[in-house]
Order: sequence, then C-alpha cells, then structure tokens
Amino acid sequence: MTPPSLEITGRTRLLAIVADPIHHVKTPQRINALLRAQGIDAVMVPMHVGPDRLATVMNALRHVGNFDGCVVTVPHKTEALRFCDQLSDEARLIGAVNVVHRLPDGRLRGGMLDGIAFVDGLRGAGIEVAGTSVYLAGAGGAACAIAFALAQSGVRRLTVANRSVDKARDLVERLRAGHATLEIAVGSADPSGHDLVVNATSLGLRAGDPLPLDVSQLTPRQTVAEIIMDPAETALLIEARARGCRIHEGAPMLASQIPHMAAFMLGLGHPPGAER
Amino acid sequence: MTPPSLEITGRTRLLAIVADPIHHVKTPQRINALLRAQGIDAVMVPMHVGPDRLATVMNALRHVGNFDGCVVTVPHKTEALRFCDQLSDEARLIGAVNVVHRLPDGRLRGGMLDGIAFVDGLRGAGIEVAGTSVYLAGAGGAACAIAFALAQSGVRRLTVANRSVDKARDLVERLRAGHATLEIAVGSADPSGHDLVVNATSLGLRAGDPLPLDVSQLTPRQTVAEIIMDPAETALLIEARARGCRIHEGAPMLASQIPHMAAFMLGLGHPPGAER
Repeated sequence: MTPPSLEITGRTRLLAIVADPIHHVKTPQRINALLRAQGIDAVMVPMHVGPDRLATVMNALRHVGNFDGCVVTVPHKTEALRFCDQLSDEARLIGAVNVVHRLPDGRLRGGMLDGIAFVDGLRGAGIEVAGTSVYLAGAGGAACAIAFALAQSGVRRLTVANRSVDKARDLVERLRAGHATLEIAVGSADPSGHDLVVNATSLGLRAGDPLPLDVSQLTPRQTVAEIIMDPAETALLIEARARGCRIHEGAPMLASQIPHMAAFMLGLGHPPGAER
Repeated sequence: MTPPSLEITGRTRLLAIVADPIHHVKTPQRINALLRAQGIDAVMVPMHVGPDRLATVMNALRHVGNFDGCVVTVPHKTEALRFCDQLSDEARLIGAVNVVHRLPDGRLRGGMLDGIAFVDGLRGAGIEVAGTSVYLAGAGGAACAIAFALAQSGVRRLTVANRSVDKARDLVERLRAGHATLEIAVGSADPSGHDLVVNATSLGLRAGDPLPLDVSQLTPRQTVAEIIMDPAETALLIEARARGCRIHEGAPMLASQIPHMAAFMLGLGHPPGAER
C-alpha cells in the first residue's frame, strides 16, 4: 500500500460539502482524515451556497469531470433532492438527501444517511430506542430522516413538533402510512412524557437562536439529544443538563456516518477500510 | 504567527484551477505549498471543465461564498474573459485571462500573468529577450500574453505562426498598433532565422500530438522554449536538444508566477510573503 499523500494534484478527485452557514461544518476534517488513512486520492472542500443559488451550483457541479459527490446539509437537504436523477430508498421515502454521488455521465444520485446515523450514534452511547417514547423537534430534512429511522427501529410512540405545524402534520401522515402500530402525533413545544427528546432543527447553530422546545418541562428521567455539532453544547443541552437530564451531543451522528458518506460520494460498494 | 495548518475546515477559503485536460496541472501543488508556508487558510483544488461547460461553472462559482478565485488554463483562457466583470490592463490588452478573483459581492475580476511570467522565467535562466528575434508558435490566450510581454520587453523582431492563420494575423495587427518599431510578421511552420523559438500552443501536452513547428529547420544557435510543464521534456524539446539547441522548459514560467497568482486570486495587494 502506498503511504497516504496529503498533496492535491491534477488527478485528485473533488468532493464538497454544500451548506449555509458553512463555518461550523466538521465533515471535511473527518472525510479528509479517512481518505488520507485509506490512501484515496480525493479531497473534500467546503462550499458556502445560499438557498437561492443551490440550483446553479448543483447543476454546475454535475459538469465538473473530477467531481465525485458532495454532502448536503442545512438548509439544503430537502431542496437538493430536486437536482438528483436517482435516489436511494431512504432519500425517496424521506424526501430529502444529505449525500450526492456524481455518476461518470454527470447524473446525480442522492442518498439520506442522517436517520440511520443518528440511531447508530445513540446505540453507540448505550441508548436503545426500541420500545421508547420519543419527542422530535423539527420536520425538515434531518428531522424526517430521524423520524423514519426511529420508526424503523421500533420506537413505541413518536411526537413531532415544529414551528410550521403543517410540515409536522405532513411528516406524521407519511410516517403513519408505513408504520400502523406506531403511536404518532403532532406535538407542542412541551416535551413532557417522553423518554427521549431530540432536537432536529437548526436552532442552536447560531448564537442567540431561540430554544427549539420548552426546556422548563424537562425532567431528570429524560435524555436530550442534539443533531447540532458546533457548538458541542448547545443552549438546549446546557439547559437539559442543568435540569438533570442525560444529554447526547451531535458528534456521534456524524462520526458514525463518515465512512458511509465517503462510500456513497465515491460510488463505492462498501465503506473504505470496512470489511466486505 | 500560528503554525501552518494542513486541515481543511468550514472556514477554509476555496481556490480552483479550471482546465481540460486537468491531470497534468502543477499549480495546486505549488499554490497549496505557498498557502501553507504563509499560514493562509485557503486551498486550491482541480476542476475538470470542458469548453461547453465553462459558462455554467464560472457563473456558479461566483455564487459560492467562500470561493475567492481560480487559475484558468488550456483551453479556457480566451473564453473565460467573457465571464469577468472587471479586467486588469494586461487581460484587456491580450484578450484573455489566466487568473480570476471573486469579489465579495460575486463579481469576477480577470488578470493575465502568463506573459510577464514567461519573460521572467527566461530571465531567471539567463536568457534576455531585448534586441533578439523570436519565433512564436500559437495565437491563443497564452501565445497572445507572451507576444505582448515580449513586445514590451524590447524584442527586435517577432514572427507569429499558427495553424489558423487568421488568428495569427489578428494578433500581429494588435501588436503592431502598440509597438511601431517592432518588426512583426505572420510566419510559417519554419522557425529559421530566429534567436528564440517558443511553443505557446498546447501541442505536446497529449502523447501523440503533432509537433508545433518544423523541427528539421532548427539549428544549434537557437534556443527553444516551452510553456508546457508536463511532460517536462516535450517531443519538441527532445527534437531541439537532439539538434544542438539550448532548451528552456515550461516549469520556470509557472514558478515565477505562483506568488502573483495567489495574490490575485485572494485579492491581496502584494504576493504573500513578499516585501511590500
């Protein structure tokens, strides 16, 4: 095996993460470390793209011959699906993508790894969701992915709360269709009565954001989980800890999906370095 | 001063080199080494873009918030000018750009450093062009840049040869306008009677390319210079050396313009690390 090279040359394949804001992302560091460790001649760079420019940028990237794929994150996960020519089963079901692979002919294939990664991250921390009751704040791309993965993982009861109630209701209807035995409802800002409380909104990413739910109702028997990685301790987690809750940060969700993201973007059949 | 970091994060500024083919480019290696040495949090990546997609990609890059600029090379130097909102004096005169800076508002500013860099590279090797007779193969973006820089540097006689004679004639007319005392003519494939013979076409970049001029006419008193860097020894240089000519490879032209390219792309007033 050749030693891992840090040098970017004319033969290096290009990967990107498309986000707005972009400064907080941790994916390039993790993906590039994996690529180096595996001796893969590719590099991930950040691309700061606003919502009104996503179409322009995605449709340009499909024409960059050495571009292999990208991670798509807040606020583009739902919208990015429109630019994909093919979708994984998860992406189609959830209606959002968080990872894109460019086929050699320029077509784009979208996938959604967030939900599986979130549940894997909880399991890695010893938190099993099967049979529990979960409160989920958010109904955007990441929230949908997590909701479907929670439903697949045998959650007993799921409550979805969102500022835009219509979006929450839509998610609840879609979940109901495939999971007849799941107790599911649209909720308020009050997370009372659930074992696990999950923030799947982007509130907490920016300093001064409002809290995503009513923290005054949290009790010590609840676990509060985040999808935000930077800051590691969001205002929500700080409030939850102060009220005696167990907290689960956003980092494990990313860590557990890094190899899967790399495999998807590069069009590999299995994660780099993983056993076949 | 903070130690130079190799890590790409969400705060890293993005630079690119846009070319077709792309595999041979050496600019990312050089620019990234300079950025690291100067502790500048930016990275240059290759982008393989065909001529029919240049418009799409350039107009998308202007909407990537952390994109600061790019180097533009074969075959895009003339066409890329169309996407610039501002031009340096050299770019306007030559009608081509080899470097682009993205202003914070998304406007693009084009510059052309090839000509000055080529003459600087010759001087660095002890080859002075003032008062000499030069044969120039090519009339594209790089050839135009070199022709104007040679004229500015006091060349006595300049012959321009190109497969498309109209393009050569156009370049000759434009040069004549600004340099009344320069002996200038459109030439054939025969480089006889010139002190310096320059290949400024892309012939030699791909294996199996035809030679850019009639090498059977070369004599040992001539110097033959390339703009192609990979392969370092093109078929032309091999033939020239076999005929006893002094040869000058393409690398010095790049080496001498790397700091100027970085400064232009990043919108700095002077090359990073240079004395003010």
